[in-house]
Amino acid sequence: MSILVVGSVAFDSIETPSGKAERCLGGAATHFALAASYFTDVRVIAVVGEDFTPEHEAVLTRRGIDTRGIEHASGRSFAWSGSYMTNLNEAKTLNTELNVFQSFKPRIPDEYQDSDYLFLANIDPVLQAEVRAKMPRAKLVCGDTMNFWINGQPDNLARVLKGLDALLINDGEANLLARDPNLVRAAEKILAMGPKSLIVKHGEFGATAFFSDRSFGEHCDPCRPFRAPALPLAEVVDPTGAGDSFAGGFFGYIASQKQLTPAVFKKAMFYGGVMGSFAVERFGTARLQQLDPSEIEKRFALFRELSHLEPEEA
Amino acid sequence: MSILVVGSVAFDSIETPSGKAERCLGGAATHFALAASYFTDVRVIAVVGEDFTPEHEAVLTRRGIDTRGIEHASGRSFAWSGSYMTNLNEAKTLNTELNVFQSFKPRIPDEYQDSDYLFLANIDPVLQAEVRAKMPRAKLVCGDTMNFWINGQPDNLARVLKGLDALLINDGEANLLARDPNLVRAAEKILAMGPKSLIVKHGEFGATAFFSDRSFGEHCDPCRPFRAPALPLAEVVDPTGAGDSFAGGFFGYIASQKQLTPAVFKKAMFYGGVMGSFAVERFGTARLQQLDPSEIEKRFALFRELSHLEPEEA
Repeated sequence: MSILVVGSVAFDSIETPSGKAERCLGGAATHFALAASYFTDVRVIAVVGEDFTPEHEAVLTRRGIDTRGIEHASGRSFAWSGSYMTNLNEAKTLNTELNVFQSFKPRIPDEYQDSDYLFLANIDPVLQAEVRAKMPRAKLVCGDTMNFWINGQPDNLARVLKGLDALLINDGEANLLARDPNLVRAAEKILAMGPKSLIVKHGEFGATAFFSDRSFGEHCDPCRPFRAPALPLAEVVDPTGAGDSFAGGFFGYIASQKQLTPAVFKKAMFYGGVMGSFAVERFGTARLQQLDPSEIEKRFALFRELSHLEPEEA
Repeated sequence: MSILVVGSVAFDSIETPSGKAERCLGGAATHFALAASYFTDVRVIAVVGEDFTPEHEAVLTRRGIDTRGIEHASGRSFAWSGSYMTNLNEAKTLNTELNVFQSFKPRIPDEYQDSDYLFLANIDPVLQAEVRAKMPRAKLVCGDTMNFWINGQPDNLARVLKGLDALLINDGEANLLARDPNLVRAAEKILAMGPKSLIVKHGEFGATAFFSDRSFGEHCDPCRPFRAPALPLAEVVDPTGAGDSFAGGFFGYIASQKQLTPAVFKKAMFYGGVMGSFAVERFGTARLQQLDPSEIEKRFALFRELSHLEPEEA
């Protein structure tokens, strides 16, 4: 089944304790699409400028990603630069140039209309809502957001949240959105805002899913929270895009399955962690561009083992 | 099998977003002993002052804890006051009065000599080493420490570390001890200092164990790291003693088993998390004083479910 993702394609300049990289192909839609491409067909809605060359596009098309929804505008692509020198868990933004992204009006090619899965990456909630409205047949919709929209566009964001099957955000965003420093209470408040499920990402400590009684159908028993671990890594080369790669692995795996059950959701969170762990091993999307499916399965086995008690031990 | 714990018995005055408590019976040895008492016999080496009444002692003896090693000195007991108002994950110390603890010289009753398990709670490494030397027959020794000793007594601490089967510390302590901000590299460096195994506690995100090739015998295959989750809780009333309660559950479970195998170690980490999760539900040791074994087993099942993928799902 096909996933349609709308979000940023950008050039990232990044400094971390492991080194520097200039103008890596990045952006939430890029990381998401590459990670999801190992599980299912992916289509991208985004805008790029004249600095986005056929070589950049080939990074996506080599992975079978459908780029017909990427609009080529005159001007330069979205560019971001950031530093992780003082804190690997949080980027310090040095510069943001919206460029062609500033006047982005998402247009959805007719060929994308039959996409069953829709991912609204972290962009202006007005655009997220617009794309959602244009994809009425999407049967599962997940999304991301950030502090900038939580603070600046609460009403528009509230409308997006009502239509989400799952919201994926990090701890700080969850606390801010709910105005509650406690994760469990924040999750309850956010689920009451509309999303059927909530995934809160904890960086190196994994991610926790919280479920409502609508998570798996109209009325179902809510599942207890579920926590997927993250793999302890001896070197995090570049954390940029780890969350989007998590989302790509998570939603890509779900799109590859017949039905969204609690078991599928939980396994999808492990695949999210797996793709996030690969993403941070190299600058930009270098690692996500050339994975072998057997590497993904091997790492999934590592994740599984990491917190697993054998039934006879329990 | 019996565990001998040496550490502080103290009176804690605590302020958290949930309220205030004055002079709760606390201290590392108290939390550890109460948590471990649900799994095995526990003996305590500590010093208290004249403000430690028979009622206080009964908190321990009601749980079957052997208090013959608690020395009664003239003067007042160790007293600590702290606030978690700005950060539930880290206490701000408001006041510390060492009192009788200042001149503490641990004396080990003859009846304690056959203790197979020894826990060196967070006290001066000189005292930890002294107790270790007086217990040559202890077959498994675990210990804790803190920034104050890492910074102030590196050489004495180094000697203690060489004799430990497992060191239990938190993330910040691990980074400081290894002078490395990365958890995996810090763990490698700490294991090279002597402890056969290392547990790094992550507060609300659980704990990760790192193993050496000496973790389970003279020469064995080192296991991969293992992460035990922590239960997401809607209210953390008082985090004081959560780490010591984790250690008590962890070591208590190990002492209740015939042999320390990888499976026993992993399950012990889950019991550590279970006892930590109970400890924070009430001020001081209130919750740890009156648990039902069935509550412990129920919560263990919750912990197990939290990160568990069914084999058929994997």
